[in-house]
Amino acid sequence: MIKVGIVGGSGYTGGELLRLLSLHPGAEAVCITSRKLEGRPVGDVHPHLRGISSLNFESPSASEVAERCDVVFTAVPHGTAMDWVPDLLDAGAKVVDLSADYRLPLEVFERTYGMKHRAFREAVFGMPELHPEVRGAGFVANPGCYPTGASLSVAPLVGAGLAERVVFDSKSGISGAGNAPSETSHYPNMAENVIAYKLTTHRHRAEVDQELSRLSPGIRVSFTPHVVPAIRGILTTAHLLVKDEFIGSIPDRDEISKIYRDFYRDSPFIRLVPGVPSLGAVRGSNFCDIGFEVDGSGDRIVVVSAIDNLVKGASGQAIQNMNLMMGIAETEGLWLPGGAP
Amino acid sequence: MIKVGIVGGSGYTGGELLRLLSLHPGAEAVCITSRKLEGRPVGDVHPHLRGISSLNFESPSASEVAERCDVVFTAVPHGTAMDWVPDLLDAGAKVVDLSADYRLPLEVFERTYGMKHRAFREAVFGMPELHPEVRGAGFVANPGCYPTGASLSVAPLVGAGLAERVVFDSKSGISGAGNAPSETSHYPNMAENVIAYKLTTHRHRAEVDQELSRLSPGIRVSFTPHVVPAIRGILTTAHLLVKDEFIGSIPDRDEISKIYRDFYRDSPFIRLVPGVPSLGAVRGSNFCDIGFEVDGSGDRIVVVSAIDNLVKGASGQAIQNMNLMMGIAETEGLWLPGGAP
Amino acid sequence: MIKVGIVGGSGYTGGELLRLLSLHPGAEAVCITSRKLEGRPVGDVHPHLRGISSLNFESPSASEVAERCDVVFTAVPHGTAMDWVPDLLDAGAKVVDLSADYRLPLEVFERTYGMKHRAFREAVFGMPELHPEVRGAGFVANPGCYPTGASLSVAPLVGAGLAERVVFDSKSGISGAGNAPSETSHYPNMAENVIAYKLTTHRHRAEVDQELSRLSPGIRVSFTPHVVPAIRGILTTAHLLVKDEFIGSIPDRDEISKIYRDFYRDSPFIRLVPGVPSLGAVRGSNFCDIGFEVDGSGDRIVVVSAIDNLVKGASGQAIQNMNLMMGIAETEGLWLPGGAP
Amino acid sequence: MIKVGIVGGSGYTGGELLRLLSLHPGAEAVCITSRKLEGRPVGDVHPHLRGISSLNFESPSASEVAERCDVVFTAVPHGTAMDWVPDLLDAGAKVVDLSADYRLPLEVFERTYGMKHRAFREAVFGMPELHPEVRGAGFVANPGCYPTGASLSVAPLVGAGLAERVVFDSKSGISGAGNAPSETSHYPNMAENVIAYKLTTHRHRAEVDQELSRLSPGIRVSFTPHVVPAIRGILTTAHLLVKDEFIGSIPDRDEISKIYRDFYRDSPFIRLVPGVPSLGAVRGSNFCDIGFEVDGSGDRIVVVSAIDNLVKGASGQAIQNMNLMMGIAETEGLWLPGGAP
Repeated sequence: MIKVGIVGGSGYTGGELLRLLSLHPGAEAVCITSRKLEGRPVGDVHPHLRGISSLNFESPSASEVAERCDVVFTAVPHGTAMDWVPDLLDAGAKVVDLSADYRLPLEVFERTYGMKHRAFREAVFGMPELHPEVRGAGFVANPGCYPTGASLSVAPLVGAGLAERVVFDSKSGISGAGNAPSETSHYPNMAENVIAYKLTTHRHRAEVDQELSRLSPGIRVSFTPHVVPAIRGILTTAHLLVKDEFIGSIPDRDEISKIYRDFYRDSPFIRLVPGVPSLGAVRGSNFCDIGFEVDGSGDRIVVVSAIDNLVKGASGQAIQNMNLMMGIAETEGLWLPGGAP
Repeated sequence: MIKVGIVGGSGYTGGELLRLLSLHPGAEAVCITSRKLEGRPVGDVHPHLRGISSLNFESPSASEVAERCDVVFTAVPHGTAMDWVPDLLDAGAKVVDLSADYRLPLEVFERTYGMKHRAFREAVFGMPELHPEVRGAGFVANPGCYPTGASLSVAPLVGAGLAERVVFDSKSGISGAGNAPSETSHYPNMAENVIAYKLTTHRHRAEVDQELSRLSPGIRVSFTPHVVPAIRGILTTAHLLVKDEFIGSIPDRDEISKIYRDFYRDSPFIRLVPGVPSLGAVRGSNFCDIGFEVDGSGDRIVVVSAIDNLVKGASGQAIQNMNLMMGIAETEGLWLPGGAP
Repeated sequence: MIKVGIVGGSGYTGGELLRLLSLHPGAEAVCITSRKLEGRPVGDVHPHLRGISSLNFESPSASEVAERCDVVFTAVPHGTAMDWVPDLLDAGAKVVDLSADYRLPLEVFERTYGMKHRAFREAVFGMPELHPEVRGAGFVANPGCYPTGASLSVAPLVGAGLAERVVFDSKSGISGAGNAPSETSHYPNMAENVIAYKLTTHRHRAEVDQELSRLSPGIRVSFTPHVVPAIRGILTTAHLLVKDEFIGSIPDRDEISKIYRDFYRDSPFIRLVPGVPSLGAVRGSNFCDIGFEVDGSGDRIVVVSAIDNLVKGASGQAIQNMNLMMGIAETEGLWLPGGAP
Repeated sequence: MIKVGIVGGSGYTGGELLRLLSLHPGAEAVCITSRKLEGRPVGDVHPHLRGISSLNFESPSASEVAERCDVVFTAVPHGTAMDWVPDLLDAGAKVVDLSADYRLPLEVFERTYGMKHRAFREAVFGMPELHPEVRGAGFVANPGCYPTGASLSVAPLVGAGLAERVVFDSKSGISGAGNAPSETSHYPNMAENVIAYKLTTHRHRAEVDQELSRLSPGIRVSFTPHVVPAIRGILTTAHLLVKDEFIGSIPDRDEISKIYRDFYRDSPFIRLVPGVPSLGAVRGSNFCDIGFEVDGSGDRIVVVSAIDNLVKGASGQAIQNMNLMMGIAETEGLWLPGGAP
């Protein structure tokens, strides 16, 4: 039984880690930290876990956590994870960091997040479909929610050299903004609305750019996020503009399907669906559903992906990474159906 | 491994049975029927089950189903279940009927549903918290969604003889109306709205009346249902008016809590919560959360219960019944956290 | 042209007053106050009013406001209105107070709100359907949103002496809680949920009690509020329990309809509807739609009313009061259709 | 007083025409047709209009309608409008057609809609901001909802010759699909979801292409629609990719603002907003709010527009057209604030 610690467990990703671990036959949450909630049962903050988890929040040091755990998830804000990760690693724990602190090269991180990195380490980028080196790794940086939906949607086509440019237009449930009330999450503002924000400047673009550039150097990546009246889920609409050489000669539907199936043949959580994926089908699950259509104009492919932002976009992918790091089956404890309707 | 059949699997309760059974270590769905979908994979209708269930819809006879299964769930409309149940039972299967056909005594059924019963049998009313005789039973009538939330909310207080009358005001997610589009379920009608319906005539009142009258003969039961802009869940507000003899001398909060705890001491899915329960905490789970408050006026107790209408209100309770009928742990495969947020 | 001032214009009721006044041919908002927004255009806070209202927030004294205005709406929190109202009145303005400060007799106010009243005055209770003395009045206390929907739903039947007791179960859109983000209004908490709160202790009960007791001394009034996933609207379900003498001999549907029509014959904003009212039909309008059903059990009538909490439940009713106070047609500027779908 | 007829009044656009006309001081609906609802009051179908409109549905001939009306709105499906329009015009009525039958040149219409046109006439394209010739016209084709939000969002920049290509990613409330229940509009499918559809083949692309090509021949236009959990509104995200010659030298924020202000200086319903527009600010109103951001990459401008699909995207724009056709002020009866919150 893998012993798991969760650093920073009061937020949605912490709760979701506990929820998913409660369903995992080979792992067990043994420690969850929160300075301000020390001593209180997790059910006070995560009422859906009452009776399921009997843990209380604790406030131990990194080395104490590492001592009691085989794997530690750091689910704290960016800028804070760097205060935990090196100590956890040095104390011998495997670490999956859910913050942004270790997803980008040092200089890209500092430029993108506008802050000095106080404790940089090299991490494996934790998107197993694109990074088989997660298997057996000791330190993994769990990707952002938007980059997961975006990168997975087009990676096969980008890898095949088809894309000149991809314009990502993403629609996220509001839980991605966390559990603290805000103007944006205020029901009268969010309901019956779609809120576009950071039209050209969202930090997650850097991760998508990093991943797609590895597959096709020089590709141009644009990204515009929106929040929609939904609690969970990200629907990513990828407008892939093909290179001039493919205009008018885009592979047909069957060929593109084959490109996807080949690329993802060892990726159990990717489902290529007929038609267009929807958020309901992935709600609560670790699946990434993908559908596409070739524009009759001959110069564009529209790909749509659907994930649950808190699962495949955060805590589920983190557990998928843990499974691979610990050498157990990738799907262990994660082969969960979505919660439709 | 318990072999399970699902008769009538194209609706929400059928999909939910498959979802829950996919998480059950001791049971396996081996057969799911739908005449009109014969031959098609379940993922076509329940896209969240793609990759999870490899079953195809079939159209076998009752005896064929019974032959292949230990337990059969009939998830067909009322009036249709009676065409299946006797044959299934006679062929040796244990049956949990999710329709209304066997929840009420013959004459009450015929009066309430305005139809002749063509094949009556005695069933155990499948609410294990109130009917320990479910254990080992061969035929169980699974309760309606509203009656589950309503009966469980006040059963301990009614059993203690406190109630003169209970006015139930229930608020249900719209999935309770099934997966067929209708005026009511049309998004522009349902969103930003609350729809009261069958203000005094909903058929589920008969089930609540039956259960509470067993506990306190002569009690008066009123019931008014509403649908609210939510997919899943029933929040029941029970306005319990105390008998004259208790006016001004209602037991205090601690005493009432004790009544609940004693009554439900062997009922793992009941959670008495501080404050007021919410639908998020039970979403996707088999829990029934209950909170209450004593009116300072001294003549009313307001109890609020929250369930997931498709789980504790339908498919989850059906599996809970199956567990008990088959002699395995009541919580087997059902000890699932809710899906908040 | 009636000159109107709005004291405390940064909230939803302030914005709604401006919206409705912009449609009023005989009145004009000339002054809107907010200390913290002084100098800023109203469109900054109420973006739907950009181009419609050219007012800037100001921070004048009460006497300055009174000097420039014929009528002043005080749309500030309870406890603050009392700092404005006497000065406004003394300076010669007519006043409609939208807070709770003047809705109840002094001692009831102090007990209910747990505070000393620093500047009590007698006001007319501003529900014109029950208080014709609003016409020509100089100071009106605008009712709470819940009490409006509740009192209007059953006033005719209570006035006819039918009711022993009324159990009000109200469902409100979340805008009733104001424009400040909170745990309750946080989208992931409010969406897909129904939140019962203050199950037995909501302060608005006192207003309903006051109004119904006037019509039928000794009547028992219970009130439990809920918020539902909707921005606007209150659906009130009134479970009216008849006096013993009427059990089994409740007036029939036509007789009850006649009671309503007679009672509200001079009340243009009351619409008795066939079937059950819905929030969409009143959204954005000053109507109160009412429907009912007699319980076959012979001891209960269920009445459902629908209002827009920000219009008939607040700012619209305030303008209705203003019209009557100023001697113009009650419907002037308010004869607006609802905004369905 | 302009006498107005509405052919096909049972749908959302018909109801919205009535709602808006009820607020119009210079026009009056005198006739509304529906074959299947003949004789019934409009309030039966549009309950928000009870008490507001006393019309009954009728089933007259085109010439009868034309005789009684100065202006006729045809609010029937495409393919049906062509059965009414020529007769109405020949009988002397001015006509605003809300269907797609006259928005495109004959051959483009037939190719796009896959049907023969039985009665083609030339119409003015009814987007007054781009077509001043609406003033005084006798026959106007009212644009589609998506094309309105899309074309208005970028017309100034396209007119300025900046755009190589525009990728439109539109998010619509579900009322755009009409009032007939469907799989898509079924609440459990639509809520908590975003549904991309017709990823590359939506017919409205042709209208956008037509309008933008007039402003910048050769421009490439892509369009992908989505429905979101909202009743009303379209938020259009326009990813404008600049011509090579402007890469790295895009006009700055102030210059672009000036381009918009100059282009729309005579367009009262266009509001250029700081930040990003939202649906709440335009709900129920005829405004089109526009905001934008220049991508630091130097090759893209992201423009976001917000309209109410049933008002500026349909019935409001139709009345705006009527005002201009009849020579009265463009804003008459339409200077309505949005209904936020």
